[in-house]
Amino acid sequence: MKAAVLHAPGEIRIEERKRPQPEPREVLVQITAVGVCGSDVHYYEHGRIGPFVVEAPLILGHESAGRVVELGENVTKHAVGDRVTLEPGVPCGRCRECRAGRYNLCADVVFFATPPVDGAFAEFVPIHEDFAFALPDALSDEEGALMEPLSVGVWACQKAGVSAGDRVLVTGAGPIGQLAMQCARAFGATEVTISDVNPHRLELAGRTGATKTVTPDDELDGDYDALIECSGHPAALSAGIKALRPAGTAVLVGMGPEEDGTLPLSVIQGREIWVTGTFRYANTYPTAIALAATGRVDLKAIMSQRFGLDETDAALRAGREDPASVKPLVLP
Amino acid sequence: MKAAVLHAPGEIRIEERKRPQPEPREVLVQITAVGVCGSDVHYYEHGRIGPFVVEAPLILGHESAGRVVELGENVTKHAVGDRVTLEPGVPCGRCRECRAGRYNLCADVVFFATPPVDGAFAEFVPIHEDFAFALPDALSDEEGALMEPLSVGVWACQKAGVSAGDRVLVTGAGPIGQLAMQCARAFGATEVTISDVNPHRLELAGRTGATKTVTPDDELDGDYDALIECSGHPAALSAGIKALRPAGTAVLVGMGPEEDGTLPLSVIQGREIWVTGTFRYANTYPTAIALAATGRVDLKAIMSQRFGLDETDAALRAGREDPASVKPLVLP
Amino acid sequence: MKAAVLHAPGEIRIEERKRPQPEPREVLVQITAVGVCGSDVHYYEHGRIGPFVVEAPLILGHESAGRVVELGENVTKHAVGDRVTLEPGVPCGRCRECRAGRYNLCADVVFFATPPVDGAFAEFVPIHEDFAFALPDALSDEEGALMEPLSVGVWACQKAGVSAGDRVLVTGAGPIGQLAMQCARAFGATEVTISDVNPHRLELAGRTGATKTVTPDDELDGDYDALIECSGHPAALSAGIKALRPAGTAVLVGMGPEEDGTLPLSVIQGREIWVTGTFRYANTYPTAIALAATGRVDLKAIMSQRFGLDETDAALRAGREDPASVKPLVLP
Amino acid sequence: MKAAVLHAPGEIRIEERKRPQPEPREVLVQITAVGVCGSDVHYYEHGRIGPFVVEAPLILGHESAGRVVELGENVTKHAVGDRVTLEPGVPCGRCRECRAGRYNLCADVVFFATPPVDGAFAEFVPIHEDFAFALPDALSDEEGALMEPLSVGVWACQKAGVSAGDRVLVTGAGPIGQLAMQCARAFGATEVTISDVNPHRLELAGRTGATKTVTPDDELDGDYDALIECSGHPAALSAGIKALRPAGTAVLVGMGPEEDGTLPLSVIQGREIWVTGTFRYANTYPTAIALAATGRVDLKAIMSQRFGLDETDAALRAGREDPASVKPLVLP
Repeated sequence: MKAAVLHAPGEIRIEERKRPQPEPREVLVQITAVGVCGSDVHYYEHGRIGPFVVEAPLILGHESAGRVVELGENVTKHAVGDRVTLEPGVPCGRCRECRAGRYNLCADVVFFATPPVDGAFAEFVPIHEDFAFALPDALSDEEGALMEPLSVGVWACQKAGVSAGDRVLVTGAGPIGQLAMQCARAFGATEVTISDVNPHRLELAGRTGATKTVTPDDELDGDYDALIECSGHPAALSAGIKALRPAGTAVLVGMGPEEDGTLPLSVIQGREIWVTGTFRYANTYPTAIALAATGRVDLKAIMSQRFGLDETDAALRAGREDPASVKPLVLP
Repeated sequence: MKAAVLHAPGEIRIEERKRPQPEPREVLVQITAVGVCGSDVHYYEHGRIGPFVVEAPLILGHESAGRVVELGENVTKHAVGDRVTLEPGVPCGRCRECRAGRYNLCADVVFFATPPVDGAFAEFVPIHEDFAFALPDALSDEEGALMEPLSVGVWACQKAGVSAGDRVLVTGAGPIGQLAMQCARAFGATEVTISDVNPHRLELAGRTGATKTVTPDDELDGDYDALIECSGHPAALSAGIKALRPAGTAVLVGMGPEEDGTLPLSVIQGREIWVTGTFRYANTYPTAIALAATGRVDLKAIMSQRFGLDETDAALRAGREDPASVKPLVLP
Repeated sequence: MKAAVLHAPGEIRIEERKRPQPEPREVLVQITAVGVCGSDVHYYEHGRIGPFVVEAPLILGHESAGRVVELGENVTKHAVGDRVTLEPGVPCGRCRECRAGRYNLCADVVFFATPPVDGAFAEFVPIHEDFAFALPDALSDEEGALMEPLSVGVWACQKAGVSAGDRVLVTGAGPIGQLAMQCARAFGATEVTISDVNPHRLELAGRTGATKTVTPDDELDGDYDALIECSGHPAALSAGIKALRPAGTAVLVGMGPEEDGTLPLSVIQGREIWVTGTFRYANTYPTAIALAATGRVDLKAIMSQRFGLDETDAALRAGREDPASVKPLVLP
Repeated sequence: MKAAVLHAPGEIRIEERKRPQPEPREVLVQITAVGVCGSDVHYYEHGRIGPFVVEAPLILGHESAGRVVELGENVTKHAVGDRVTLEPGVPCGRCRECRAGRYNLCADVVFFATPPVDGAFAEFVPIHEDFAFALPDALSDEEGALMEPLSVGVWACQKAGVSAGDRVLVTGAGPIGQLAMQCARAFGATEVTISDVNPHRLELAGRTGATKTVTPDDELDGDYDALIECSGHPAALSAGIKALRPAGTAVLVGMGPEEDGTLPLSVIQGREIWVTGTFRYANTYPTAIALAATGRVDLKAIMSQRFGLDETDAALRAGREDPASVKPLVLP
């Protein structure tokens, strides 16, 4: 099979690889659509993300969908021909975190495109049957690929406790900010403010549900129930926390360049604000699929470019080269 | 001022009453719209609801909106002319339940149209300024009156923990069932099944967001995240609980004729189901107003008849006399 | 190896069985202590519990501890010689319930002494290494065996939300009621009332932490934060619910003979009571071990008789024959 | 009556004041014991705490107990002669925060010894009857006075979700750290590590329940369920957060000198840590009284010196002058 393999920063080679065999309880999926994530771009540009270092050739891509083409032993949940979206991290299922339901924090998770585990910029990928989710007819393969970033938005809203009638502030209008904003709406938020410096992104957000778009320099008038920070800028985080109502919640989704950051501790104490962060997601795929399939979120609106598998390197550069780029897709 | 006064079961008299004076921190509201609630009808027909007995002439009506016409001392939150909806129960604010945030369970609450406290089928009603909520321009007075039953639906969804992507079963499609169903949608539920024997009500529900309508005789195929029981029928409650997924939640909103009821205890244990009930609501008005003002719920769809204050008795009989009646309104 | 095998109601035979081989990631445990549970007695007397029917010879016993004597492949968490307590249900780790952290509701769990899975009245038992928990020196093997029923008490208190300063009512003072009462104390409850008809059991409870002991005929003066129902008597459940404060929680632990039961629905609604039930437990073993090892619960106080493996049938009859019996143990 | 009045930093005068009259629903309390809090000391030394500035003579003291000597109109909950502890903040009972049960965040709260509201270093103090709590015989007046700082510890443990079997880290072993540590034990924590630079305080903590005492330089070996930060040192906060298990909770109780502080954001994200702060407490007095009355916490152990009302200034200096001082008391 063909795969797009990262050999060094900036160097993707299209190679022939042996077609994988599904292990027991695994299905083999012919990949038809893969979204390009900021983390793929980061590995492509720098060869690492913090402690995760690409030390051997690696296939990137973890936002994927496709068609089941082969079943391993004892598979009961899928048949050949099923259209599926792939949850890209398979946890151990046994450790304390897994047993407590927070399997995204499993230390032994096997996660696509995280060294040394290969990802989905390839023609075929095997996955445990319980981590392939059937796509309803209402969703295209391209939309199916975006169940992964949509899950990030769903998880952020769940952590933030977004509920009907809430006022939510989303800082950062990249792909994750866009989806978090759309999710906040789908969770019933009636006011969603989104901030960014990029006018293309604010325009897109305004078109897809944000009730107010602002730049980081605008004054925030406060009293938000929740902040979903997707920019990775400490200043946005600090200003956002100050705009929360008493007992409001701030969720850090965007990762900044530094390990530490400055927070307004006296506000956190005086208003008893809750602050947390998200690491991937858990138990979100059914929700993401239901929201997309019923039109509660609009994934097509954020798809900005499409590439063949041979053009994976162009897909990985698309975000830098086009300010209107939001979510490029690779279609193997 | 004129008021519609219940003197005995079935006997409403239109009387002249002294126009009330607002106490300190109260506003006087000229009532423009009042919804007819099942509890009003019950008092009208039977003169009592369980332990609450009408022993002296009583003004019914607790779903109301109007216009501020006079301010008591120290009022700071409203001005004369403000359009407001009235939260009809003013709790003590000091007892254990109030302090814990569950003021709907305050033993000393003063609640409209609950003997011996008069309600809103009258030209003027005084209320503490913190329990009058400004109506945005997007909402009519009639819609404003329905913030009260909408609050019942909001509260039921909050108790049920309805969130994005949930599958919800609502049993009973009277006014409260209709609004609970609409609220479940506004809370992000993507599947909402509603059951009733009345085809008019099912048709209305299908038109306003229910994804499936059934009769009590239909088989339920199970795996709901939440049951919101609005019929008061123990059989519906029992069947609904059996249709819940493991760890699902059942909320009893409808009140049946008996104090006790039979529940499937072995299912509650074996699936660790949560069962609770609602008594009025707490902290729901801002949410209800936000949902209605942004079009997340459609209140006009359930308004079925309109009456003048002089016709209050006809309004109280409307439900019995017209199978297509859902929510009659009195417009003083 | 020797094992005590149930062949028919009332008929236990001591048989030679092949010593099990540990599968990969399993440890083989030489069993040194096994508690007798009411469910063992029920299978022994009736050959079934509801839908679970003993259709082939079955080894009972699921409250067990022992010593690791052999390691399967890839075991990393235990060494030969380790003293361990065994969590007797190994869930699939992949299904929706497992992933959500409620693995006790996994439909594919493999649970000791539940037909057709053998239990621990035997010399050796294999178990996945993650479901064997190291026993600290402070705990004897006999205490280790009781981590299982203690887990039931821990889980009941977690479901009931018992916290510091709470007033808790425990109905039924059998082994589970005793441990639930002790757990409530360990969770910080400052008032714990326990009810039973058996004066031996009430005396034991009074000696081990109950602040009040009553019989089912005594008037309950109400305002409890939580009810933990361990008797299986619907009347106790109903009376207990009526004794809860507004927004209190009732947890059904004891299983009655009937599938359905009558509950005071008007109280559940009027006070917004929460009712749920427990099915086994999840994530409780570390807590149970910590509580026992630090002396927060007294397990020795409930151990009433000891038997050899050859006397397993006597152990299973001990509860019926001695009113002072609480928790008999089999020591293989 | 006599009162100790702060006129300027470092200047307390004992003055004659008019004995207060209780308003309707207030009781007049003859104060018998008042604890000295760090905030009293801070006002005494600096004349302000952040935005709260002492601009007119002020009576300090908000940890108090005494005896009811006079009843205002409509008092029903207390009689003359009752021994009571005083919850020193009376919220409005009507605003959004009050109605939601978080009355400690009420913007209109009237709180003892917070400018311009007088406190309890006086012979008599009036208070709303619902904010005076009866002291059981098991508690002395001195212990009664300490229901206030004990409430801070209770609230911290509630926010941290401390439950049975938890491992808790408390940083800072001043009076609040001591009580938070004792509360963590009373909430069922089985391991409680406490850190401080002051060996007297560590010795006291070890004597009253801490399972491990460390200095800020010691390595923390991690995996705590909760951090309760009582030192106000950002370094302690950061190190403590890094020692939490995945999904653990950090609660900021101690206030540092700066408004902002540096937190390890990548740890908060990567482990999905929850961080919050406390501002006073809500609904804690019944719990605090129950814990103290049943011996779950040892308040006498932290009482370090006693002074007459005339010696209030000495009491306010005691902490600085004696390294073994923990909680000085004034006994009017």
